[in-house]
Amino acid sequence: MSISWPSYFSSRASSINGSQIRQYFALTEKPEVISFAGGFPDSNIFPQEKITITLSRLIEEEAGRAMQYGPTEGHLELRRYLAEKNSRSDKTCTVDNTIITDGSQQGLDLLCMILLDPGDPVLVEEPAYIGGMSAIKSYGGIPVGINMDNEGPDPKAMENAILKLRKKGKSPKFFYTVPNFQNPTGLTTGFNRRREILALASRYDLAVVEDDPYGKLCYEGEVPSSYFDIDNHDRVIYLGSYSKVLIPGIRIGWMTGPEPLIEKITLAKQSSDLCSSSLGQQLAYRLSREGFIDRHIEDLKYAYREKRDAMVESIERCFPEDIVYNRPRGGFFVWVDFPDRYPESTKLLDMALRRNVAFVPGEGFSSRCACTHSARFSFSQPGCKEIITGVERLGQLLEEVGAKKVAGPIFANNTGI
Amino acid sequence: MSISWPSYFSSRASSINGSQIRQYFALTEKPEVISFAGGFPDSNIFPQEKITITLSRLIEEEAGRAMQYGPTEGHLELRRYLAEKNSRSDKTCTVDNTIITDGSQQGLDLLCMILLDPGDPVLVEEPAYIGGMSAIKSYGGIPVGINMDNEGPDPKAMENAILKLRKKGKSPKFFYTVPNFQNPTGLTTGFNRRREILALASRYDLAVVEDDPYGKLCYEGEVPSSYFDIDNHDRVIYLGSYSKVLIPGIRIGWMTGPEPLIEKITLAKQSSDLCSSSLGQQLAYRLSREGFIDRHIEDLKYAYREKRDAMVESIERCFPEDIVYNRPRGGFFVWVDFPDRYPESTKLLDMALRRNVAFVPGEGFSSRCACTHSARFSFSQPGCKEIITGVERLGQLLEEVGAKKVAGPIFANNTGI
Repeated sequence: MSISWPSYFSSRASSINGSQIRQYFALTEKPEVISFAGGFPDSNIFPQEKITITLSRLIEEEAGRAMQYGPTEGHLELRRYLAEKNSRSDKTCTVDNTIITDGSQQGLDLLCMILLDPGDPVLVEEPAYIGGMSAIKSYGGIPVGINMDNEGPDPKAMENAILKLRKKGKSPKFFYTVPNFQNPTGLTTGFNRRREILALASRYDLAVVEDDPYGKLCYEGEVPSSYFDIDNHDRVIYLGSYSKVLIPGIRIGWMTGPEPLIEKITLAKQSSDLCSSSLGQQLAYRLSREGFIDRHIEDLKYAYREKRDAMVESIERCFPEDIVYNRPRGGFFVWVDFPDRYPESTKLLDMALRRNVAFVPGEGFSSRCACTHSARFSFSQPGCKEIITGVERLGQLLEEVGAKKVAGPIFANNTGI
Repeated sequence: MSISWPSYFSSRASSINGSQIRQYFALTEKPEVISFAGGFPDSNIFPQEKITITLSRLIEEEAGRAMQYGPTEGHLELRRYLAEKNSRSDKTCTVDNTIITDGSQQGLDLLCMILLDPGDPVLVEEPAYIGGMSAIKSYGGIPVGINMDNEGPDPKAMENAILKLRKKGKSPKFFYTVPNFQNPTGLTTGFNRRREILALASRYDLAVVEDDPYGKLCYEGEVPSSYFDIDNHDRVIYLGSYSKVLIPGIRIGWMTGPEPLIEKITLAKQSSDLCSSSLGQQLAYRLSREGFIDRHIEDLKYAYREKRDAMVESIERCFPEDIVYNRPRGGFFVWVDFPDRYPESTKLLDMALRRNVAFVPGEGFSSRCACTHSARFSFSQPGCKEIITGVERLGQLLEEVGAKKVAGPIFANNTGI
């Protein structure tokens, strides 16, 4: 007798479903497609040679540690380095506040495991990072979207959402945010907005989970102080990652937060996968310690800034004027809103694919099935020429499906500071 | 106001606790201690040079793939290679049956996530691998130990346990087993025993989770066919790992099983950590494909066989005769039973530590707080001289705490075939 697997699954398994992004990854693999879909970093600017040399030295000098199992909480040197980077004169961060994770996605997953009971609401940005919402949903959490304006999530909307939930006898456990160059909108939450949101978090006793994979990739001005830095009450959990500033292929990120939480997360990680890759940790540590990553980030900023400019300028030139989009100051993403008279963005995608261009329709990023006339355009992977060609093709398509003329960036005034 | 973290945790978090093994890892770090505690592979026999060369070539030849995010289910070539290795003339295994995981521990974790509801009983060996039990418990599963004899888990005991659970209205979802050179006992389940257990699994409709990190490290004779090979009903899930046959520091394992299950596991892995390390996967693939790993296993067998012999022979020579132990045909572990007139093994450990020798007391491996007079001795990490010295020190200690004379191996007749 064979097992009937689906009926054999746990009740939790029913809330584990594929993210929309997953199906679009497949699109990025066809060589003829110019893809604005995946949010991968550009592999052409991975520091190949430096990594090869460092790995060789690492294995020569400390094979025993670099290839062996490591402590669940991560290698001490890397944790110490990251803790020092996260410390300020008025706020000390130690190794006990820091755990290494398999990319920041694992950090999110472990947090949801430790914090969420089925049915718990979680405040998220509207629209929000798909992987964040997947992690929340996979533990039975319910993402509740908070609308954003130029300065980030709207505190009024947030307070209303909290009060509405309270009336139903529920309290959100945390607010999940990507405050710098958000995935998917490219928006950066302003400094004052961060303070307002922290004040709300304190008033209603919720934690803030600050996911910051893009903060270092700032092409103009500076990013505001992090929630983690502003917070004085151990209310913020910071997630960092080497995926965008070094390479994703080693799966190394980290989480910094209050000691009792990090302690529990460590226990959870132990039964999840014992430990993160020692090779990856030691590579990240060496390249951080010797200042290489800081220098490499300057090269990355130069390369991605050019791509951003290529995308924004060609959108400005080629898209009908009633289509609104932003000009992100960093990160990988431009968010585009199509007025209602255009087809829904899933339909636009079908048409775009026939012209060998891909992007991600907006609705997967919405916690409430909105954003049907929006899309995320990622400029991180294609080269500048491809970006221009891709946008030109889309511009032609949009003209054909019916259009008028030129609009400015929606978030043009978002200085984000 | 600060958050009171422990009261903020999910109800599930209370079942996530540290394993006993964790505290013993710390012991292994003191240089003066001869440690039989950790089950780590010997880092002195990691193929350093080969790995360095392969990593360099890999990065030179396909940097884009080796350092980038990869598909959640794993790199296609590695999955294809593993699927072919798992195929037989009468049982085809394809890439759709295979997912790459962060070591086999992640495989276990994802399985428990997908299969277990809180309160679900899971059959395990008595004693069992601690990490397996942690994963089960962390999803609210309840490990139910099945006694073992020389041939492996006792089918009578298993059937009784199932019937007893049924009377309470519960059915175990699966049987978790390490059939080759089990952690912690070193025991190998015989071929006929595997058939009997599979027949029981079929009769009572449960899955078998076969965790096989040590199967290739066989120092005498051969291991019996795997449950996975014997099974004809898609009832077995096989977990494999590169940790013991290559290095643990890349965190690469795999799971082979029925397609609907692997599909769900892939979705669960996506929100857990997006994907496993590309660098690790490509390294494992290249070294597998070119036959290096098979050749390297021959070296490993030679080295670990010597260590096993050093341990078993010195135990025979130095331990009082009423202490029983086994002579494993492979793997890393010797299991030792002390008669009741010796102190409990946790107390013995305290005394041993004062003589700078460490091992793991048995009770952490028991699902029912038994094994208080047993211990796991791992011979994988120390050199032969250290092993002999460590056993001599323990022998002296055991003589001192009160002893008689010499007994043979308890599982001497366990040919395991």
